[in-house]
Amino acid sequence: MKTQFFGKNFISTQDWNKEELETALGLAFDLKKKFALNEQTPYLFHKTLYLLFFFSSMRTRTSFQAAMDQLGGNSHDLVVANLQISHGDTPKEVGKILSSYGHGIAIRHCDWQVGNKYINEVAANSSVPVLNMQCDVYHPFQAMADLMTILEKKATLKDKKIVMSWAYAASYAKPISVPQSFLLLLSQFGADLTLAYPEEFKLMPEIMEQVTENNKKSGGKLAISHNMEEAFENADVVYPKSWGPLVTTDDPEEGKQIINKYKNWICDSSKMKLTKKGCIYLHCLPADRGLEVTDEVIDGPQSAVFDQAENRLHIQKAILALTMGGK
Amino acid sequence: MKTQFFGKNFISTQDWNKEELETALGLAFDLKKKFALNEQTPYLFHKTLYLLFFFSSMRTRTSFQAAMDQLGGNSHDLVVANLQISHGDTPKEVGKILSSYGHGIAIRHCDWQVGNKYINEVAANSSVPVLNMQCDVYHPFQAMADLMTILEKKATLKDKKIVMSWAYAASYAKPISVPQSFLLLLSQFGADLTLAYPEEFKLMPEIMEQVTENNKKSGGKLAISHNMEEAFENADVVYPKSWGPLVTTDDPEEGKQIINKYKNWICDSSKMKLTKKGCIYLHCLPADRGLEVTDEVIDGPQSAVFDQAENRLHIQKAILALTMGGK
Amino acid sequence: MKTQFFGKNFISTQDWNKEELETALGLAFDLKKKFALNEQTPYLFHKTLYLLFFFSSMRTRTSFQAAMDQLGGNSHDLVVANLQISHGDTPKEVGKILSSYGHGIAIRHCDWQVGNKYINEVAANSSVPVLNMQCDVYHPFQAMADLMTILEKKATLKDKKIVMSWAYAASYAKPISVPQSFLLLLSQFGADLTLAYPEEFKLMPEIMEQVTENNKKSGGKLAISHNMEEAFENADVVYPKSWGPLVTTDDPEEGKQIINKYKNWICDSSKMKLTKKGCIYLHCLPADRGLEVTDEVIDGPQSAVFDQAENRLHIQKAILALTMGGK
Repeated sequence: MKTQFFGKNFISTQDWNKEELETALGLAFDLKKKFALNEQTPYLFHKTLYLLFFFSSMRTRTSFQAAMDQLGGNSHDLVVANLQISHGDTPKEVGKILSSYGHGIAIRHCDWQVGNKYINEVAANSSVPVLNMQCDVYHPFQAMADLMTILEKKATLKDKKIVMSWAYAASYAKPISVPQSFLLLLSQFGADLTLAYPEEFKLMPEIMEQVTENNKKSGGKLAISHNMEEAFENADVVYPKSWGPLVTTDDPEEGKQIINKYKNWICDSSKMKLTKKGCIYLHCLPADRGLEVTDEVIDGPQSAVFDQAENRLHIQKAILALTMGGK
Repeated sequence: MKTQFFGKNFISTQDWNKEELETALGLAFDLKKKFALNEQTPYLFHKTLYLLFFFSSMRTRTSFQAAMDQLGGNSHDLVVANLQISHGDTPKEVGKILSSYGHGIAIRHCDWQVGNKYINEVAANSSVPVLNMQCDVYHPFQAMADLMTILEKKATLKDKKIVMSWAYAASYAKPISVPQSFLLLLSQFGADLTLAYPEEFKLMPEIMEQVTENNKKSGGKLAISHNMEEAFENADVVYPKSWGPLVTTDDPEEGKQIINKYKNWICDSSKMKLTKKGCIYLHCLPADRGLEVTDEVIDGPQSAVFDQAENRLHIQKAILALTMGGK
Repeated sequence: MKTQFFGKNFISTQDWNKEELETALGLAFDLKKKFALNEQTPYLFHKTLYLLFFFSSMRTRTSFQAAMDQLGGNSHDLVVANLQISHGDTPKEVGKILSSYGHGIAIRHCDWQVGNKYINEVAANSSVPVLNMQCDVYHPFQAMADLMTILEKKATLKDKKIVMSWAYAASYAKPISVPQSFLLLLSQFGADLTLAYPEEFKLMPEIMEQVTENNKKSGGKLAISHNMEEAFENADVVYPKSWGPLVTTDDPEEGKQIINKYKNWICDSSKMKLTKKGCIYLHCLPADRGLEVTDEVIDGPQSAVFDQAENRLHIQKAILALTMGGK
């Protein structure tokens, strides 16, 4: 167990080592229990977290708000259009000034090849933790909630086949941050991973290399498949989710043509039948019902999507408390 | 006096029986006194209320915000356009997810034949109280503040003639929720009610039936008039307010033609002279000055509109404390 | 030292006498020290401040939010477009109603010949303090933060040459509230002031008269220059900043033509060389880099802009605590 978290950023799960991540998970389970008991946890009493959204949000916005409330602090939802960021407020000024007023800065900025760069520039100028609420590359809090849910449902990662699969959706360019952070985190924990996608939907090469590096240290495995059915066979956990062919093309028209070739990549009951008994279905929500997944699956007994959404709250409380309030 | 409120919804005043409503009113007067003394009332310490606005608001928004502050909790004003509700977040998901993070969900959704349905769908999926900040059918917190103000100014409803009247305004389709909730609530309390309106402005038949049912139990009375002057005669309380001819037509053009026939339905000094000495003037605000009411009346000594607005705060604190914090 | 602040407005620094302003400054330094020690300062526990923005903001919004958090209270950022202010909510109603719910009302309204009038109308109808977050005439909290920064860097105003200068920027009509409040405040404190501007950029005559009045009482001085270099000579503090030629013309086209004659009014290293050794550079931010000031100066060792921005927090906490929580 680690104790030195005060002032740390959380931009990618890779910023923290396995022991640090385990400490955060342990605290998240502890805080979840306290929440059920309505026990007070004012670790951030009267402290301030700014939430900067350059992209829409429901779960992320509301779970960070409740997290700060339950820690005794405050959050402020800065609708970027209302600020003066357009005329002269550079990332430097955002970092310097907000960190002189408050105790943390959380940012969602998903623009391709812009978001992560922006977050890092703010972090370079901030004297308080900068937290990534999703960028073009990473979605670390989502990945932590995903892992927490798998551990709750399956007790251990040992001998569990875990499948992250691409799925079809109407909008062509959903962020690739969810599968990337999921693979990065699970490979740090030594999981038996399968990644399935039509070839045009490959992830960023530098992320895949990092997953390989992680696996070398952790003993984890990664299989690649271009066939959804094959990937689902004997799976313990499936996480079928759309993302854009951004690494292949960032042209919307070309992207649309590519994506429309793969309408059969839907998670339905027949595919779920290929999985192991007790396999759970994950999705970070919102799901494109009827395209990514059938109602039968997402509303069915194998679906853990609402546990997954709830766990956002608990893991965020843990990481906020450690970085903004810890030693 | 009742004590079992924890987790209850407040979508219509009809959801609660008279004893429950009386308990809430009693607590509201108690909290009002404590507010005057600046006494702390942290019944919802570090708890979270989400405010979902599908429609603009001043009094409702700011009074719910102050209510949660004074109860030691937090509120979050969710501007619906910033959420991802458009792509995949159904009422089911809003209910399930927000209730897993926070302790209450308050919704304003006034779209005709949509708002109430939406609120009920969220409530069906929520594990925490769902509170109606106004829909197409009901405005229960406004009605409670109205009743509170009448009781403050008149001490009792006994032998008081209380008039809810239609009034002219330029915009043709104001919600009918205010008169409907007012009649429902006052009829539960056995009031002597008069409802005045030009024929095209009738209220929903199922609401009128419920008022009749309430009167049977409570001993209340309801007279109908289609003449504003006649209705005002000997009144102790007048509440002249515009609403749309929605039950007759939801066509804007037709509605406009109908409404323009009744420009003489304005509350002015000459009409106020028909009332009993000491009669009070109510309006939920904002009023269309010069159309619904003259400045002389709304700014005059009989006007209780700012008491009525203030009482929103106190009754909301009472109902929030009971449903989100009570036993 | 004064102790009677409860319920006072802060619309212009002129509303307070020198002793009152000194008390606020003293408290601000005290609160700044406590902030560094993470000492709790819950002077406004569970109290409510409404923030009404009719104009965009970053520093002001986020510093008032953090200020209320650290005082144990709550703030609500009312995006004016979401309210019902357009249809019937007059300044009278805003003042009456918000002051019946909360404990303070802070307003930013910069429209020329409208903003200050609006704030005063709300104040006339409010039972709680009304605080000016910038109007067309004044920016009192900025001026207080400016003075606080000068005192920190220079220890005293005695024998210090302090220069407020116009500077070029692309947008023609920036508010004149910053130089006006700066001169008003500094003249109350007996400073040796120089005001530099091209003739078309004169400030409001009634403000200049008030500065002269202040100087008579305080022993302060004001020199006027129409030459930026001349003004900078031997300066201890320079504050070069753009504002619109509003007193000369409010026609955008004419304004643009005037402003474009003065592109050489930029604060650069060669002008800084004219100042006294150790001279500090001030700017309220955001600055138009490359137009008002070069990167070299604003990012250089003489720049105190981030101290100035941080001091907004501390002086606001002091004035909020005194007016909303004091005796």
